[in-house]
Amino acid sequence: MSIINLDYLAANPLLPEVQEAMIDAIKKNFSNPSSQHQLGDEAAAALQQAREQVASLINSPVLKEVVFTSGGTESINHAVKGVAFANESKGKHIVTSNIEHNAVLRTLRTLKLMDYRVTSVPVDEYGRVNPTDVAEAIRDDTILVTIMHSNNEIGTIQPIAEIAQITREKKVIFHSDAVDSVGVVPIDVQELGVDLLSFAANQFYGPSGAGGLYIRRGTRIWPLIDGGVQENNKRAGTENLIGIIGMGVAADLAARDMEFRIRHSRKLKEMLIDGLKARIADIYINGHPKLSLPNLVSVSVRYIEGEGIVLMLDEESIAVSTRSACAAGALQASHVLLSIGRDFADAQGTLVITFGRNTTESEIERFLDALEEVVQTLRNISPLYIKAKQEQAEGVALS
Amino acid sequence: MSIINLDYLAANPLLPEVQEAMIDAIKKNFSNPSSQHQLGDEAAAALQQAREQVASLINSPVLKEVVFTSGGTESINHAVKGVAFANESKGKHIVTSNIEHNAVLRTLRTLKLMDYRVTSVPVDEYGRVNPTDVAEAIRDDTILVTIMHSNNEIGTIQPIAEIAQITREKKVIFHSDAVDSVGVVPIDVQELGVDLLSFAANQFYGPSGAGGLYIRRGTRIWPLIDGGVQENNKRAGTENLIGIIGMGVAADLAARDMEFRIRHSRKLKEMLIDGLKARIADIYINGHPKLSLPNLVSVSVRYIEGEGIVLMLDEESIAVSTRSACAAGALQASHVLLSIGRDFADAQGTLVITFGRNTTESEIERFLDALEEVVQTLRNISPLYIKAKQEQAEGVALS
Repeated sequence: MSIINLDYLAANPLLPEVQEAMIDAIKKNFSNPSSQHQLGDEAAAALQQAREQVASLINSPVLKEVVFTSGGTESINHAVKGVAFANESKGKHIVTSNIEHNAVLRTLRTLKLMDYRVTSVPVDEYGRVNPTDVAEAIRDDTILVTIMHSNNEIGTIQPIAEIAQITREKKVIFHSDAVDSVGVVPIDVQELGVDLLSFAANQFYGPSGAGGLYIRRGTRIWPLIDGGVQENNKRAGTENLIGIIGMGVAADLAARDMEFRIRHSRKLKEMLIDGLKARIADIYINGHPKLSLPNLVSVSVRYIEGEGIVLMLDEESIAVSTRSACAAGALQASHVLLSIGRDFADAQGTLVITFGRNTTESEIERFLDALEEVVQTLRNISPLYIKAKQEQAEGVALS
Repeated sequence: MSIINLDYLAANPLLPEVQEAMIDAIKKNFSNPSSQHQLGDEAAAALQQAREQVASLINSPVLKEVVFTSGGTESINHAVKGVAFANESKGKHIVTSNIEHNAVLRTLRTLKLMDYRVTSVPVDEYGRVNPTDVAEAIRDDTILVTIMHSNNEIGTIQPIAEIAQITREKKVIFHSDAVDSVGVVPIDVQELGVDLLSFAANQFYGPSGAGGLYIRRGTRIWPLIDGGVQENNKRAGTENLIGIIGMGVAADLAARDMEFRIRHSRKLKEMLIDGLKARIADIYINGHPKLSLPNLVSVSVRYIEGEGIVLMLDEESIAVSTRSACAAGALQASHVLLSIGRDFADAQGTLVITFGRNTTESEIERFLDALEEVVQTLRNISPLYIKAKQEQAEGVALS
């Protein structure tokens, strides 16, 4: 039985066209784009083409504004630390939200050790930031606002353009972690009005190890990685050309197929949510019902643990994720789920189901069948569940 | 006419076995090594294998001590900034040498903007650091010594083990940028006694975009890239698995073939130096005559500019490099060449010739033929050369 992959967020499978382009690049055996001779010229041309493809996907008007990195996490570190260090003389205060990715959270934790101060704004029950809260959090010494475009656990999309209006007025640099959005939903850096935007190829069927940071001209930022003059002096180190070529092709295809992919995903998402609601009692669907990624469903299954569900589904050759932020294996509940009001136990019982262009309706059906069974099995041995059902029964008997 | 590549240092061509492994990895379409399910397991196993291959190449006794990065420049930034930030409470003083790579130089320049202080020790006419100078430069507030293993412009190898003895006695962390050494000459982190060692796959026929940092257990260092728990919590971000698999295979082959490669390179190097001395007057061969990389020859051709030589050789389909540290195109003389006593003009007239396992004796012959002609052509129109020859002639006439 082939594996049903419902963990696209961990890594999208490479598209055949991306594979082909990368294999071709490997065979061509490009030299270093920064070399002074012919061998370098071909490499430089390939790099340039990829930059055009990526710039086009996010509608960046200036090619130089696209800086290639080793992935979303590096881009985020670059944006946040780069702005923090470059603007220290103005202040050391940063505004963020309560539901950011670990790449932002831990970068800010590091900066706090260096005496930076952070204000984190809350989100509502759907995981949305209120732009007014951001406006109120900005102080004279605020140098950066960093708010994600979409959340990787619940899919909720933030009012980035509205926040950008505020940051522009208040002359504060604005970074958005758009790793789970770029290539998935339309992203236009000019419409959004952000100064910095992070993204990664492996969220749109490109390879892991290639990502980008959009840096609006004139943004005061230091490199994260100092050294040679690559990437317009903003990111040193010989480029991962094979990965970047793959990202370029993936960007091209994402732009071309986005409408179709979104339509396909929306249909699956609807089917999945309807199926979950119809077949499994005592669940929450997390995230905003409309302003949300089309390719992600977060569901909290009450009374049992997500880890157990993942393991049992794995035995059925179905890959899903808990994404409960306990990536370390620590029994730590997701800060995202706690922020939208789930309690510790429900947060622990949460699955993140992500899918894509190759996912079929019959795979969703098979997943629902398997999940129904797994949930029943786990609940039958769950003390929490048994107690809850007894209390319900007693409640009914008493009333 | 096929291109003669004598610029291996810019990027080694991928070995056929490396290409095959990477193409295989692309076709396998691995998932994320950190995933919780079967799809992730295969990726994790491939990552583990690469780590064993790389650890073996540098004789790292503990697999966890090898941290994968996006390349040599990231590794160096990680080592230097990571130690600086983590040990600030002890002090802000760093010791380095006058001939480090831009990745070290510019990282230190950034740290200076953050009130770190740097002492840079000189080198002798061969580019060697005197360990006594390092010992004398270390102060109570010194937190890091960073000295390269071999120099990328002149090839000189430093007395790293001797320096490590000093840093161990004085309890200062020691990093060595071994980007141009690992995979080229034997590197054993235990024998060297370093705490941190940077390296890159593209110096041993692996892909650009994959590198590593050896971090001895117990070394006080922060991540450069914060986020997920990848790489034993030392380097966040989904791994560039395709590149890392390529690096693993390249490491394996480097270990296996090192002796042969060194023998082959030494023969070419000798032939090249003999040919240069016999056929071109007024040159300097730079670097240490013995303690030096086998695959690199640096030659200063007096009275003309290296850029001109590179361009004219490029027309003859021969790729070499000036590596005059004017990578930005600025007319800046190499700090390495100035440090070993070359004057500005001679530094500008310097070529770095690097070669490898596929380089043949007949390619070296063709290069020498072409260079002889190019040098004569350029000297015939060089005012510096004409003046020098006139002065020599007058000197002879007067005496």
